[in-house]
Amino acid sequence: MKNSLDDKEEGYRLEKDIIGELNVSRNAYYGIQSLRAKENFNITGLKMHPEIIKNLVYIKKAAAITNFEAGLLDETIAMAIVQACDELLKGKLLEYFIVDPIQGGAGTSLNMNANEVIANRAIEILGGEKGDYSLINPNDHVNCGQSTNDVIPTAGKMTCFVLTKKALKQLGRLYKAFEEKAKEFDHVIKMGRTQLQDAVPIRLGQEFHAYATAVRRDMIRIEKALEEIRYVNLGGTAIGTGINADEQYMKRIVPKLKELSGIDVIQASDLFDATQSLDSFVAVSGTVKACAVTLSKIASDLRLMSSGPRTGFGEINLPARQNGSSIMPGKVNPVIPEVVNQVAFHIIGNDLTITLAAEAGQLELNAFEPIVFYSLFQSIDTLTYAVQTFVDHCITGITANEERCRQLVENSVGVITALCPHIGYRDSAEIAKEAIRTGRPVRELIIKKGILSPADVNLVLDPMNMTKPGIAKKKLLRK
Amino acid sequence: MKNSLDDKEEGYRLEKDIIGELNVSRNAYYGIQSLRAKENFNITGLKMHPEIIKNLVYIKKAAAITNFEAGLLDETIAMAIVQACDELLKGKLLEYFIVDPIQGGAGTSLNMNANEVIANRAIEILGGEKGDYSLINPNDHVNCGQSTNDVIPTAGKMTCFVLTKKALKQLGRLYKAFEEKAKEFDHVIKMGRTQLQDAVPIRLGQEFHAYATAVRRDMIRIEKALEEIRYVNLGGTAIGTGINADEQYMKRIVPKLKELSGIDVIQASDLFDATQSLDSFVAVSGTVKACAVTLSKIASDLRLMSSGPRTGFGEINLPARQNGSSIMPGKVNPVIPEVVNQVAFHIIGNDLTITLAAEAGQLELNAFEPIVFYSLFQSIDTLTYAVQTFVDHCITGITANEERCRQLVENSVGVITALCPHIGYRDSAEIAKEAIRTGRPVRELIIKKGILSPADVNLVLDPMNMTKPGIAKKKLLRK
Amino acid sequence: MKNSLDDKEEGYRLEKDIIGELNVSRNAYYGIQSLRAKENFNITGLKMHPEIIKNLVYIKKAAAITNFEAGLLDETIAMAIVQACDELLKGKLLEYFIVDPIQGGAGTSLNMNANEVIANRAIEILGGEKGDYSLINPNDHVNCGQSTNDVIPTAGKMTCFVLTKKALKQLGRLYKAFEEKAKEFDHVIKMGRTQLQDAVPIRLGQEFHAYATAVRRDMIRIEKALEEIRYVNLGGTAIGTGINADEQYMKRIVPKLKELSGIDVIQASDLFDATQSLDSFVAVSGTVKACAVTLSKIASDLRLMSSGPRTGFGEINLPARQNGSSIMPGKVNPVIPEVVNQVAFHIIGNDLTITLAAEAGQLELNAFEPIVFYSLFQSIDTLTYAVQTFVDHCITGITANEERCRQLVENSVGVITALCPHIGYRDSAEIAKEAIRTGRPVRELIIKKGILSPADVNLVLDPMNMTKPGIAKKKLLRK
Amino acid sequence: MKNSLDDKEEGYRLEKDIIGELNVSRNAYYGIQSLRAKENFNITGLKMHPEIIKNLVYIKKAAAITNFEAGLLDETIAMAIVQACDELLKGKLLEYFIVDPIQGGAGTSLNMNANEVIANRAIEILGGEKGDYSLINPNDHVNCGQSTNDVIPTAGKMTCFVLTKKALKQLGRLYKAFEEKAKEFDHVIKMGRTQLQDAVPIRLGQEFHAYATAVRRDMIRIEKALEEIRYVNLGGTAIGTGINADEQYMKRIVPKLKELSGIDVIQASDLFDATQSLDSFVAVSGTVKACAVTLSKIASDLRLMSSGPRTGFGEINLPARQNGSSIMPGKVNPVIPEVVNQVAFHIIGNDLTITLAAEAGQLELNAFEPIVFYSLFQSIDTLTYAVQTFVDHCITGITANEERCRQLVENSVGVITALCPHIGYRDSAEIAKEAIRTGRPVRELIIKKGILSPADVNLVLDPMNMTKPGIAKKKLLRK
Repeated sequence: MKNSLDDKEEGYRLEKDIIGELNVSRNAYYGIQSLRAKENFNITGLKMHPEIIKNLVYIKKAAAITNFEAGLLDETIAMAIVQACDELLKGKLLEYFIVDPIQGGAGTSLNMNANEVIANRAIEILGGEKGDYSLINPNDHVNCGQSTNDVIPTAGKMTCFVLTKKALKQLGRLYKAFEEKAKEFDHVIKMGRTQLQDAVPIRLGQEFHAYATAVRRDMIRIEKALEEIRYVNLGGTAIGTGINADEQYMKRIVPKLKELSGIDVIQASDLFDATQSLDSFVAVSGTVKACAVTLSKIASDLRLMSSGPRTGFGEINLPARQNGSSIMPGKVNPVIPEVVNQVAFHIIGNDLTITLAAEAGQLELNAFEPIVFYSLFQSIDTLTYAVQTFVDHCITGITANEERCRQLVENSVGVITALCPHIGYRDSAEIAKEAIRTGRPVRELIIKKGILSPADVNLVLDPMNMTKPGIAKKKLLRK
Repeated sequence: MKNSLDDKEEGYRLEKDIIGELNVSRNAYYGIQSLRAKENFNITGLKMHPEIIKNLVYIKKAAAITNFEAGLLDETIAMAIVQACDELLKGKLLEYFIVDPIQGGAGTSLNMNANEVIANRAIEILGGEKGDYSLINPNDHVNCGQSTNDVIPTAGKMTCFVLTKKALKQLGRLYKAFEEKAKEFDHVIKMGRTQLQDAVPIRLGQEFHAYATAVRRDMIRIEKALEEIRYVNLGGTAIGTGINADEQYMKRIVPKLKELSGIDVIQASDLFDATQSLDSFVAVSGTVKACAVTLSKIASDLRLMSSGPRTGFGEINLPARQNGSSIMPGKVNPVIPEVVNQVAFHIIGNDLTITLAAEAGQLELNAFEPIVFYSLFQSIDTLTYAVQTFVDHCITGITANEERCRQLVENSVGVITALCPHIGYRDSAEIAKEAIRTGRPVRELIIKKGILSPADVNLVLDPMNMTKPGIAKKKLLRK
Repeated sequence: MKNSLDDKEEGYRLEKDIIGELNVSRNAYYGIQSLRAKENFNITGLKMHPEIIKNLVYIKKAAAITNFEAGLLDETIAMAIVQACDELLKGKLLEYFIVDPIQGGAGTSLNMNANEVIANRAIEILGGEKGDYSLINPNDHVNCGQSTNDVIPTAGKMTCFVLTKKALKQLGRLYKAFEEKAKEFDHVIKMGRTQLQDAVPIRLGQEFHAYATAVRRDMIRIEKALEEIRYVNLGGTAIGTGINADEQYMKRIVPKLKELSGIDVIQASDLFDATQSLDSFVAVSGTVKACAVTLSKIASDLRLMSSGPRTGFGEINLPARQNGSSIMPGKVNPVIPEVVNQVAFHIIGNDLTITLAAEAGQLELNAFEPIVFYSLFQSIDTLTYAVQTFVDHCITGITANEERCRQLVENSVGVITALCPHIGYRDSAEIAKEAIRTGRPVRELIIKKGILSPADVNLVLDPMNMTKPGIAKKKLLRK
Repeated sequence: MKNSLDDKEEGYRLEKDIIGELNVSRNAYYGIQSLRAKENFNITGLKMHPEIIKNLVYIKKAAAITNFEAGLLDETIAMAIVQACDELLKGKLLEYFIVDPIQGGAGTSLNMNANEVIANRAIEILGGEKGDYSLINPNDHVNCGQSTNDVIPTAGKMTCFVLTKKALKQLGRLYKAFEEKAKEFDHVIKMGRTQLQDAVPIRLGQEFHAYATAVRRDMIRIEKALEEIRYVNLGGTAIGTGINADEQYMKRIVPKLKELSGIDVIQASDLFDATQSLDSFVAVSGTVKACAVTLSKIASDLRLMSSGPRTGFGEINLPARQNGSSIMPGKVNPVIPEVVNQVAFHIIGNDLTITLAAEAGQLELNAFEPIVFYSLFQSIDTLTYAVQTFVDHCITGITANEERCRQLVENSVGVITALCPHIGYRDSAEIAKEAIRTGRPVRELIIKKGILSPADVNLVLDPMNMTKPGIAKKKLLRK
């Protein structure tokens, strides 16, 4: 069998495992297990997320040190592994991670890919030739005291943590951008709409403040979910019993990992549960999904409010980012909110995939972690980038059409609501009906009918008053 | 243990099964198996859909006749069962179907509930006392030659067929209503919008025609899916081998069922597959979901086009169906489209539930049919009723604001598109930009700049021409 | 138009609204708005959840009192409303809530149904005749200072809170039941399985402890989500501005509601956001969904472990709850876990519906609350009942087949894992391969090959040792 | 602003549009619109699917020819465009397609990216310099008679068609592989299981035949859905009116496209509907999803049947493809079925994303096509590759453990079912109960109790007889 990568003139080395033999390109740092996986899983054609590779390497480094301290690894071997890991952490040799993110085997392929790359580089460091696993063995040394089943979920949780922190940073910027717009638009009176029908006046700033509040709440929810993603099963090895892990190692490995990675991981108290349950990923994805729902609703609102320029609501303007049409000149479309909507749909779909995979776990392990990671990392990353472009290329550049907003309010029938406490729902409704039928302004009808004095009408129908709790109404009512 | 139904003064009869004994109300037609199920599955508090009970009874009747003809049931017993079934088919004794639609056991509880009610009624017909199963036994006689595993999927498919036919009838009415509106509004020119931004003119009738076309396509899709739902596994008994079914019975049971029920059921050629696979329900649900997507999109469009009355698009009016607000007098909301949207969300959620349940099948049987049926019947029924109210209380009463539509077109910038073939995209875009900036009409700018003669402008910018394939443009272009 | 309820001989009263007139059965406590809604929304044929009616009545009562205290309602009117509410809270007149749970209009129909029933009963209390709204008006008095848009979300949140508390109680029982089984089965050694393949030994008690841990985590998550569901928008009226609500009322209404209902509701600081955003329901549903995922995984595990009796895993026995088959005598099926799986599928589908509805909100209001409530209440209720039957009819009665479990361990190859730290992965793999090929026990091969002394083999291969962190291994390794 | 690609020493050219100016790398074939899109949509970091680029180029080529034939493009320009397209169709310049698959703007960015690359290459062909759009203009010439809104959906449908054909080819191979295994295993008697509990005998070949049948049905369903994906809206331009398209062009463009691409596209009769409705993608995705459900169920069955090797069902062996564990030597896991399950979860999630995007369309256009395409192409591609590895690396290598299968049947209690027609359900159940309690074989108990003669027992309990319709039973019954 042939391998496409690095196979130019250098030739091959023969590697064996219990299943048989395979030619591995002589230059390749991966080994037979990685190659088998590549052949088995040609699914997306994509590579693993670099962040999970990085966290996996942190684990390998922490394990080498801790096993050495516990007396399970010779210093020479341990230090060679550590050095190889340090090179990887600097971004080297990433091209030798060749396994597809959607893979069978609960991540064994990814784990073995890491074990092989690190072993081969460490072998070189010790002066050996790649493939000479008598010097450093991917399973016995690099994987010492570990199992795919504790290493992979732990690396996945770390990655989830790191990526989500980045998303939170962008959400924080979005929150701030909305807050600033809320202040900027605080004086802009416009018509509120419920069910897309004219309701009662609101200030544009109040709308943007509501967006800020919603985003803030999502941030808090995501932060809470991150709390529990920190509990890892490292040390539990195959199924949580910690079989083949040294007792000292079990105690020290997670603190060591925390020290090296700077990620505040904690060893779970029930390692069986932590090995088999993926519900924490479901929980994080659930909060990311809830956030996507919020963002999608806001994006749709912005598209509605900026609809036009002439035949829509026309209350705000989104910054023009690109020609909106290949055929219609001058058309500018709400392309940034549209991409936010789409990312939200993507995230909601991914949340389902994650849910399905988590539900399908059996007994001591959930074999479907790879698709959970693939989907979740993509959700968090696309959220991050979508929010970034939302802030930078849309929200901060929004302007209000103050005059248009005011005209719509003055022209509206919904302001009749303010009259209810004074003349009752039914009579108010009659006036509303007449206003709609005749096209006359509500104000004019009220005065014409002598229902209230012009001065009282001014007080009751002052739109700014309608956007605050009820001072005016009480006064009139009590007369 | 006590049983809440029919337990007044009449007392109980003691029934036994392999698990133990239970007091059954003396008046009850159900027996110990139904009672156990009721105790085990107190989940929704709802009853089985009457249509599946009816189809189950058709199966029991067909089986009694066919078993009699094959010599497996005595005439007396068979005829008593037939008579009991006929009573049930007239709607009697339905209250003795006491099992919850969400039940474990792949529908065994529902099947046994039917077997017990029919047995007990048939026993009475033969002059016996309810519970004297030596006369007629629920398992040996009523269930003769059958298994839950062929009876329940078959009844489920029949029910799906019947309910979907009703849905199709309503969809047909919707299609026709859209067609009629398409004609009625054929002359109403309005502004087309893409991405909620002004695009180019369209006729309102063209929009409604598009809705008709979409609905028609959904109907065809659903009809195709119904084709395959007709293939039933009746005769396959427990796992498709037909164990305990007589050979003659196996051949004759499905034609007999077709004759009795009037539903065009066909026996599947691979009874193993037909017993274990629920993908046909997934397929039907998929087409119902696709239809829900269409309807939800249309409902949202109608809400957009009727937004206002003063501060929205205001192009059409939906019939006022109820006061829109408890606080805002005169407000009329698009309540019917809103319920259509919600039913669509409901159906999309149910489609997921059905998908999950189908995926979870194991080996010779999918034990999760009950939730598939519950969700699917609900989807189809709510679709039916939502479409009915959509037609009767919304579509047929829609009116157009012709004048408003025309004004929006005349005021729009998007008509500039028609100029492109004559002066190019870039120059057209400059005029569009100027029109938006200055608020001037496009027509005025073109004439002022001497780009085209007023006569040519009239031809190029005639909105009606823009709603048809390109006669005008070619002429000018060729000059 | 005719109305089916209460229309026997008593005749009708004529009610009017801005849309027209309708005959309402003279005996009916609901009025014209409820009737219109019933005609418009014949979707599920079901009634509103009694708990949301109850919470709505609490709001109406609190509003009457608070409006009276603020001087906006006369004492006579307020007290009649309070008395009517108290009757409803005792469960009276529930049959007059006739609107379908899936309704358009953001819950206006439900709110008006409550306003009308309360008004008509209060009118009677004041000695008037039903329908004489000059005495007490559904809008002006019962709905005073309120809008559907603050009343309905608030009632929905309260209901979510109350129902979820009940679910948590059952989950607490489940947690405890798993904890007890964990103790009971602590000594039962069995084979652990990853990816359904033999892995390494585990104790049955450890498995059940993992289930307890997972359920506990879900409980905490749900409790956290409940924290935020307590923030209500009551007082914000139509869109959050509080239009038509008195200032004193705005401050006092939520504390009053808390006092009357005993539910710890808090007024949201941003009433605009709290009126338009349904993400808190998405968040609660997300945690309920995550819990469903946990439960479904556990249910599937129990079905696997109890598979058999002869041709499956056969490690545990679930209590026999009912005959498993209508055709196969003696068959006992895992019907309770199966219903748990199905309820999980139902909840996951509902979570999607809720997500869709929340995402579809527009501007100042989300019109799709009714489907959110319908789906969410159903999710929580079915979770509650499914967990209850899970505890009572399954978990507490589970027994272990200790002998079978032991035999499987002794017969297994996976125990070879414990040898790795002593002879390396590759050599261990060779022995495993030979064991599988020849069918010989691993223990025998190790001794035969002289790899370890029989005493060491006993130590290394002691299954109980394999279920605890690594004492044995270290000792040997250090020799 | 800087651009990362091709920006070494060559410097930049300045491009302008209505929004402003941008430096484009002098060597780049894309232009300002592509660059703006790249900056706006940095979401996935991935490139467009090469197949949609190819189909887009077919459209551009067909349009150039057809416009030339209709007299709307000069021959020189048209032929330069055609030549540029031909180069692209050979796979050149693909690196200049720089827009992210998840993009706002309904695909305008992708369309303009194609227009710009083709224009710039055609300009070169005519001897001009890239960026000199006076020679060939991306909008006026390359996009002549087209709109993003007809070009992009058409290219998406063509791509869906082509990719799905590849998937169908692999599904055909899977079908055949199952058929062959069905024959190979036709004589292997094993125990059937329903609800994971022992049921009645079945032949392994019957199980594999059922899988073949299910896959075949999915293929037919997908083929039917492909029928409707062929109806494209090309010619409808912006919203379906065909504005700016020449009449001759409108008639000829789709046949020309069919001729060039070899894909059997048909122009839709209602171009408005075909422009705005994405339900055909929902329909295709629905059938792909249904297929994923089938495959996932089968994959799970294979994992169950191959569970073991010692402590599971152990009925079949999947080919060993890679070491199953980094810690447990000799462990071989069902990695290929596991990746099939995961791809199914992925597809189900994508189906949801597609549904959401389709539902969110508004009025004349659905702006969310990009996420539909991204998700759908990924679904179809991963299905294709997953099925390929399923066939090649799993199904064809499956072997049966015939002896183990036989033993499980002989040891089972479920065979008692065959006795029912002879001695009734209740008595059979008593024997079953006794067999389970005592561990004695059913056969022994029947003979011991003198229920049937040994010869009759042999006949009734012959497992092979139980896997066929009921000859044996009738004979006995009639004696």
